[in-house]
Amino acid sequence: MRPPIVSLVGAGPGDPELLTVRALRRIEAADVVLADDLIDPRVLALVKGRLLRVGKRGGWPRAPGQQPLAVPQGDAQPPWERPGGGCISTDQHFIHALMIREATAGHRVVRLKGGDPFVFGRGGEEADALREAGLDVEVVSGLTSGIAGPAAVGIPVTDRRASPGVILVTGHPGDGNAEPDWAALARTGLTLVIYMGVARAAHITAQLLTAGLRPDLPAAVVSAAHTARQQHSATTLAGLPDCIRREGLQSPALLVIGDVAAQAAVAAARQAPRQAG
Amino acid sequence: MRPPIVSLVGAGPGDPELLTVRALRRIEAADVVLADDLIDPRVLALVKGRLLRVGKRGGWPRAPGQQPLAVPQGDAQPPWERPGGGCISTDQHFIHALMIREATAGHRVVRLKGGDPFVFGRGGEEADALREAGLDVEVVSGLTSGIAGPAAVGIPVTDRRASPGVILVTGHPGDGNAEPDWAALARTGLTLVIYMGVARAAHITAQLLTAGLRPDLPAAVVSAAHTARQQHSATTLAGLPDCIRREGLQSPALLVIGDVAAQAAVAAARQAPRQAG
Repeated sequence: MRPPIVSLVGAGPGDPELLTVRALRRIEAADVVLADDLIDPRVLALVKGRLLRVGKRGGWPRAPGQQPLAVPQGDAQPPWERPGGGCISTDQHFIHALMIREATAGHRVVRLKGGDPFVFGRGGEEADALREAGLDVEVVSGLTSGIAGPAAVGIPVTDRRASPGVILVTGHPGDGNAEPDWAALARTGLTLVIYMGVARAAHITAQLLTAGLRPDLPAAVVSAAHTARQQHSATTLAGLPDCIRREGLQSPALLVIGDVAAQAAVAAARQAPRQAG
Repeated sequence: MRPPIVSLVGAGPGDPELLTVRALRRIEAADVVLADDLIDPRVLALVKGRLLRVGKRGGWPRAPGQQPLAVPQGDAQPPWERPGGGCISTDQHFIHALMIREATAGHRVVRLKGGDPFVFGRGGEEADALREAGLDVEVVSGLTSGIAGPAAVGIPVTDRRASPGVILVTGHPGDGNAEPDWAALARTGLTLVIYMGVARAAHITAQLLTAGLRPDLPAAVVSAAHTARQQHSATTLAGLPDCIRREGLQSPALLVIGDVAAQAAVAAARQAPRQAG
């Protein structure tokens, strides 16, 4: 008999047409879906089984219309009190325990994560915890917003005319994430795509300018790409903090820094890219 | 009346279940599909309209079973002979002209590209050429092999326990691509994912070691991810060239360098990740 399987599924950036075919099938077939915050409501509407919202912003650990989720049974010592928990938060351990409980009870479990489960998604930790519990794990990659978000406003993150590559990095260190070495990143000459960077845009911009990036290097901010609230603005590296304040661009948002970011303005001037299916 | 629209569609890494729902719809609805090399035959089998193979390796400019494709009509001066063509190759100009001809003739055109059209796909150039011709462009992002490929063998390209980000870079400069600054990339401390790096693995490894990366830094090679020919091997940075030779790992392949690459060995030791739908 095969061991129970948990699917770590990428929900992509928002629009349900941007789910992969496999992700759609897994979501529709799941007995239980553990969903992060920031999953688009149109994607959540596809869930036919039980939906447990385990995001850290909204309502955790209480599922909508339910009693607070109980600590998994048969666990004399909750996993987050075990030694060696390291940097993994209580919340994260609770999610692991909940997935393991549901899967060992024989349920088809989908762990639904925004974007791609293996890009800033803690998917690696979740896969490890599941394997340690003897469960089988399947990873269903999803479109990461750091690539699909810029594309939504006409920006190719790589372009042989401008940059032989792209850096995807988090602008929100802490909670176990190290601060990126901004000076080292600046010296690569590659396109920089910064996730969760809006709140710290002034700090990041200052670091990159100090490292020698041009103040007039094209930059863009893309907020809530591929959702009903999508917004963007094209500016320069030096103009980034003011642009965010002036335009009221909100998290979740991406900062794109590099010559390719100028394409946002070009695409907008010619036409709005079509998003709707 | 809306102008003709061309969809630049990402075919993802291979397995048709990894197409997005939108990509699948666009492919099925297209009157004509211009497909790159390296598109999985299972994806090409979904095409219901005319299929033109415009890849540079196999059969270009002759479509299967057809006469060689004629230079687009009504173009007194072929676009690739116009001044200012810059680094864009004749082949690339031919593809632009062909898309424009088909779209202006009223056909629904899908330009199908491996992975994501805006990651090492020349999608930026193609979008520009289409807009300059007055056409509307839609970009349908796809899973890029640099993220979905490592995931297929258990590697999360980012993991807060190891790296606050990932660098996607081409290992095959030339044809308009600059050589990446390997020393600068090494200093970032981020996971490195190198596309098209197999042939130059010895050179790249030497550059990264000279820049100070540890010889025993985990590394992995993932070949033809999400296709029937998928193969991978886990090694160290210093062991990369020998590993590629010994295992006979072939292009298209990704090099993954960084602590997260050790997860390939861990995942393999515990179980083979399930790929099949």
